[in-house]
Amino acid sequence: MAARPLLLRALSGETTDRPPIWLMRQAGRSLPEYRALRARADDFISFCLDPEMAAEATLQPMRRFALDAAIVFADILLLPRALGQEVWFETGEGPRLGPLPSIAALEREAAAASARLSPVGETLGRVRGALEPERALIGFAGGPWTVATYMLEGRGSDRSLARSLVFSDPAKVEALVAVLTEATARYLVMQARSGAQALQIFESWAELLPEDVFERLVIQPHAEIVRRLRQEGIAAPVIGFPRGAGALVERYGAESGVQGVGLDVQAPAALGRRLQGAVAIQGALDPLLLRAGGEALGRRVEALLRQWSPGPYIFNLGHGVLPDTPLAHIAAVVDQVTAWRSR
Amino acid sequence: MAARPLLLRALSGETTDRPPIWLMRQAGRSLPEYRALRARADDFISFCLDPEMAAEATLQPMRRFALDAAIVFADILLLPRALGQEVWFETGEGPRLGPLPSIAALEREAAAASARLSPVGETLGRVRGALEPERALIGFAGGPWTVATYMLEGRGSDRSLARSLVFSDPAKVEALVAVLTEATARYLVMQARSGAQALQIFESWAELLPEDVFERLVIQPHAEIVRRLRQEGIAAPVIGFPRGAGALVERYGAESGVQGVGLDVQAPAALGRRLQGAVAIQGALDPLLLRAGGEALGRRVEALLRQWSPGPYIFNLGHGVLPDTPLAHIAAVVDQVTAWRSR
Repeated sequence: MAARPLLLRALSGETTDRPPIWLMRQAGRSLPEYRALRARADDFISFCLDPEMAAEATLQPMRRFALDAAIVFADILLLPRALGQEVWFETGEGPRLGPLPSIAALEREAAAASARLSPVGETLGRVRGALEPERALIGFAGGPWTVATYMLEGRGSDRSLARSLVFSDPAKVEALVAVLTEATARYLVMQARSGAQALQIFESWAELLPEDVFERLVIQPHAEIVRRLRQEGIAAPVIGFPRGAGALVERYGAESGVQGVGLDVQAPAALGRRLQGAVAIQGALDPLLLRAGGEALGRRVEALLRQWSPGPYIFNLGHGVLPDTPLAHIAAVVDQVTAWRSR
Repeated sequence: MAARPLLLRALSGETTDRPPIWLMRQAGRSLPEYRALRARADDFISFCLDPEMAAEATLQPMRRFALDAAIVFADILLLPRALGQEVWFETGEGPRLGPLPSIAALEREAAAASARLSPVGETLGRVRGALEPERALIGFAGGPWTVATYMLEGRGSDRSLARSLVFSDPAKVEALVAVLTEATARYLVMQARSGAQALQIFESWAELLPEDVFERLVIQPHAEIVRRLRQEGIAAPVIGFPRGAGALVERYGAESGVQGVGLDVQAPAALGRRLQGAVAIQGALDPLLLRAGGEALGRRVEALLRQWSPGPYIFNLGHGVLPDTPLAHIAAVVDQVTAWRSR
């Protein structure tokens, strides 16, 4: 019988001899085999919704590196698209979204959205069938606030428009986040039933929010998603990643109900250790350092291992792999982490 | 005999009946009288280096609002200019800088730079002569790391180039920060001798730095600046504002040697209270909320007063006043804070 995946052991709160490792954006543009695969689809959305291609993209880094978890290849903007807002990607410029539908229209679509996202479930099923049992499979969604910022602004930005609306039209923002909380919970339930063994919520734009706003638009929606998952009988652990939350990550860990907290590059060692009293932590190597490589990279990896192992700790980056990261640097970090043992 | 300025009492660690209040960017584009004054100078640098105009810009908000402190009208990029790097401002696009001089060239200019900045000293002298004795006068400089990011990148940005260089060419970045630390200390000594009673270090780009980098490029340089000020016999309290430092602000407060710590919009109430055990804190109203106004603004101001008074606390924003902020909102906040009493 295969050992329980190391990632799931860490997310159960176990300390482990070495931390499991996976890397945000481990699949994708840093891999030449991904770029070749991607060239076969016309647009990024079609690629994400093609289970054969998305499963292959998910598995590519698993063949190259001794990673402990795969994460389904998808995009956080598949959800607003499934809710009826137009989404497309401009090459080199990132996502663009059409006009925001009314809250009523979004609410009408919330139940159907998960069915429209069934190709993501099919991708998960294919990957789970192909992946060794000791390697975990992660499903994911964007955090409701982060997805709302894209829906409100129509593109990536510093979110100053969305953050302004929090104060100038709070009812609209709160209604939108509420619809997204509901739709995200359904989407994650579907992913867990399709084979995802852990679920990550990417709250990529948690920065620059005052404490009361963070509580209302990040902590409470995440807590509601976790509650809905458990109500639906989903036991899969949840990793919340409120990127840029700074010191607020401490309240997040205590109040959101997640089993794992993703930390960004800035997280102090002491804060991580305090969080480990209640949850597993994940992170927080700087992707810029991974790209730069050299002795400083090895030293920093060692420092992270020493400061947060035996855990519960999941080795990862503090943000996604940059497209121009040398693959030898990734291999070296995976080797270093998998060879390491808590002393 | 006039009472000691409330700002200086708070920075001495005194709790006060009500917090002193000033606002970052209280002078400048939000004021119509500033826009009229600014139209009299050809370019922004000349404006900053004209003591008559800069003093007038400094005093304008003091006439309009019952603020407890003035801050000299200047710009953090006057220093790299004085060190020999070309600096200019593109209308609507922000600062641009010419090629970075060699470290050796910058070192040669470090001693002379303060003399070249003597118009800022003259501005301070004029303002101090015109300002009521119970209102404090603040001098300032950019944090060495923040100024280095501009010097390395040649413009405002998300600092990803400068942050990459921290890993790919650490010797260059550290040498640049060291030169700037020296030049900044001299510049602040000059400002204190010209009438500044408190000194703020604007480390506006403290975000996204790993803990070890933050320690080396923010905490240690600030500690060195404070040490140099004291060596030169300058007793003026120092407020450090590492904007975006997240949970690292706690180590910053304990190790940088500053008397006051500026907090950005995200700072949790509990973190501020922990800092108040060692330093005065300053902040952290969201400028987006100040611009939006309404009942939510009054409620948030009250919440900040309750969570951090009697202090030591200095009421301020978590970032600068936005140019399109209605002046009635500023007046309302100043009224609310100055009428408030700790219960």
